[in-house]
Amino acid sequence: VLADPEAVVVTSGYVQALALLVRTAADTVAMEDPGLPFHREVVRRNGGRVVALPTDGLGARTDLLGRRVRADAVVVTPAHQYPAGVTLHPARRQALTAWARRTGGLVVEDDYDGEFRYDRQPVGALQGTAPDHVVYVGTAAKTVGPALRLGWMVLPPRLVGPVAEAKLHSDYHTGVIEQLALAELIASHGYDRHVRAARLRYRRRRDLLVSRLTGRHAPSGVAAGLHALVRLPPDGPDEAGILARAAGAGLAVDALGPHWHTPGDHPQGLIVGYGTPGEGAYPAALEALVRVLG
Amino acid sequence: VLADPEAVVVTSGYVQALALLVRTAADTVAMEDPGLPFHREVVRRNGGRVVALPTDGLGARTDLLGRRVRADAVVVTPAHQYPAGVTLHPARRQALTAWARRTGGLVVEDDYDGEFRYDRQPVGALQGTAPDHVVYVGTAAKTVGPALRLGWMVLPPRLVGPVAEAKLHSDYHTGVIEQLALAELIASHGYDRHVRAARLRYRRRRDLLVSRLTGRHAPSGVAAGLHALVRLPPDGPDEAGILARAAGAGLAVDALGPHWHTPGDHPQGLIVGYGTPGEGAYPAALEALVRVLG
Repeated sequence: VLADPEAVVVTSGYVQALALLVRTAADTVAMEDPGLPFHREVVRRNGGRVVALPTDGLGARTDLLGRRVRADAVVVTPAHQYPAGVTLHPARRQALTAWARRTGGLVVEDDYDGEFRYDRQPVGALQGTAPDHVVYVGTAAKTVGPALRLGWMVLPPRLVGPVAEAKLHSDYHTGVIEQLALAELIASHGYDRHVRAARLRYRRRRDLLVSRLTGRHAPSGVAAGLHALVRLPPDGPDEAGILARAAGAGLAVDALGPHWHTPGDHPQGLIVGYGTPGEGAYPAALEALVRVLG
Repeated sequence: VLADPEAVVVTSGYVQALALLVRTAADTVAMEDPGLPFHREVVRRNGGRVVALPTDGLGARTDLLGRRVRADAVVVTPAHQYPAGVTLHPARRQALTAWARRTGGLVVEDDYDGEFRYDRQPVGALQGTAPDHVVYVGTAAKTVGPALRLGWMVLPPRLVGPVAEAKLHSDYHTGVIEQLALAELIASHGYDRHVRAARLRYRRRRDLLVSRLTGRHAPSGVAAGLHALVRLPPDGPDEAGILARAAGAGLAVDALGPHWHTPGDHPQGLIVGYGTPGEGAYPAALEALVRVLG
């Protein structure tokens, strides 16, 4: 499905898209808990107030919107929730768009990892189901690389003018050279070929990860993306202990802890990004991780 | 003179640098009158209040700061005032840095056209004379092109942290690919060769312009930059009349009018950008301009 070109604003990546939306169209923003702390900080630093939107095995608790969770905008990662790795359940998608239609609230769809689904066709964008209420945000950060600051928003018609103006007064425009290069890559089908090849490589990495982390350390979440969440059993070492052991083995992994909105007695976990090591280094890095987890 | 690398923040061009500075360190901003209306809008849209700083034949009236003009920051184009084309007089430079030292006010040095001085060596940056009070902003927009969104700020030490943080939460970071490309261009001396060649080409264009626009239409301002200001005599056609005639001749020129902070009975003028036409098209475009001015 192609978006109306009139509804698209090109940005310098996801952070800028989020910053522009908060400055333009949102005061109180519900964000997934757990979720990326940096994105909460981006909302706050651009004048927004952040409230927690709990998540469970079906994804974000969009059924709580308008009841326990009150906000005028909500940010979700429906394709592959970060960091839990679940896909937003159809009932939760429905609850989300129903809330937006009922209240006039704004949904920001962060299509994080949308290109990297391994077990089935990617889920369709929410934006297509409620184009007057949902902003779709996609980027080239995972497919080409974060060094390339290039993203795109598909906006409800009422927001196109205000967001484009905010962008104009924020950095004039996004670099033309990289836009032309990406357009050429897409038109030549090189982008599609690259994403397919990358999807196969990352799928193999995830398969290997799943084959080696079994039993109580089996990754949660669907077969997608560039990361897996490994829950830490309560009777084993905690996040701090595992992180120290990982550092000793030369491994950089993330703890789940800082992703919760408020510190407290949360389930412990490890976020394993399997996209980063070089192709040759990956098997050894994975074996080191298996040893660290014990 | 090389800036301390610790004092540099890379931005996606001048507009972003100005936006970040206003959000971080300025409430009331004195800006040159006349000056670029878009930059005033950038200040306002990022929460700043704009006050007019008059200009005369010596450049910005920095001698009025703290007296008739009260602000906590001031933006100047000392190398080549836009649009009047004058260079900030040494006495005015001195008044400016003295004001900043006395009041703690912030000076933003927009090094517009700093690379393109034709009659003498470029004037030294203000920033070097008062590094605790002046932010230097340079970009690649005039030397490489505005399609490349790449600029750099040299900041007083107290502002490095806050501005870098504001940048982080605004668009994460500026694209790495173009930064590496420009660094390579500079290290290989290709940038310097390119700027020298461009300086020679633009100088020839300006010389041709000055040789054809004589008498009452002689351009004001120093031999620098990519534009010239042509004052319109009160007894001839006004800006609107000239613009209509120019459009009829296929010429795009700018009127001085919108550059004043407030509409009123200002001297009329035409801003002629001589960098834009292709090399082959320039002589004919210039002759068309001579006919339009009559």
